[in-house]
Amino acid sequence: MKLDFNKGNGLIPAVIQDFETGEVLMLGFMNEEAYLKTKETNLVTFYSRTRQKIWQKGEQSGDKLEVKEILTDCDNDTILVKVKMLGKAVCHTGKISCFFKEVGNDN
Amino acid sequence: MKLDFNKGNGLIPAVIQDFETGEVLMLGFMNEEAYLKTKETNLVTFYSRTRQKIWQKGEQSGDKLEVKEILTDCDNDTILVKVKMLGKAVCHTGKISCFFKEVGNDN
Repeated sequence: MKLDFNKGNGLIPAVIQDFETGEVLMLGFMNEEAYLKTKETNLVTFYSRTRQKIWQKGEQSGDKLEVKEILTDCDNDTILVKVKMLGKAVCHTGKISCFFKEVGNDN
Repeated sequence: MKLDFNKGNGLIPAVIQDFETGEVLMLGFMNEEAYLKTKETNLVTFYSRTRQKIWQKGEQSGDKLEVKEILTDCDNDTILVKVKMLGKAVCHTGKISCFFKEVGNDN
């Protein structure tokens, strides 16, 4: 089995889920380098599409994410990373999860 | 608030989570049309990158996904859709979730 980085032009989405609570914390993209770094360090590392470089989640804030388990989906183009939060939050707003806004009628 | 479809060249990742169990079931992409269709029908609709068209999840298998809640993340480029499964499975393999393969040392 090999992850399919081609479908997304070198990137795969990585869903980040709390391994204990099941809460979905965030979604980031990984290129192969970020994925291998994640496995090597056991700390979640993404590829930033805006900054066009890899970055370890929490490298500045301290809110690192320890990898507990990585699952891939049926067609190997997405991964689900179950993590333990090493900080208090995941979102840069200070909230635990980045998903905190309910979609309304205006969007 | 407006979803940011530009960052991903017209597509946003949509994480699909069971609204009761918290299990992450699959990830698909939506363009604006698929997103609006999802809201209009209350049934999850994706954009297929390989077939380059929108499709309602379960339109052939019957395993449709009823929308319970849609959340967006802090920078509005990803959505988390909490769903009720109307069929018995989500994955085309017959498994409940598409995420059933643990990543090993060879990938």
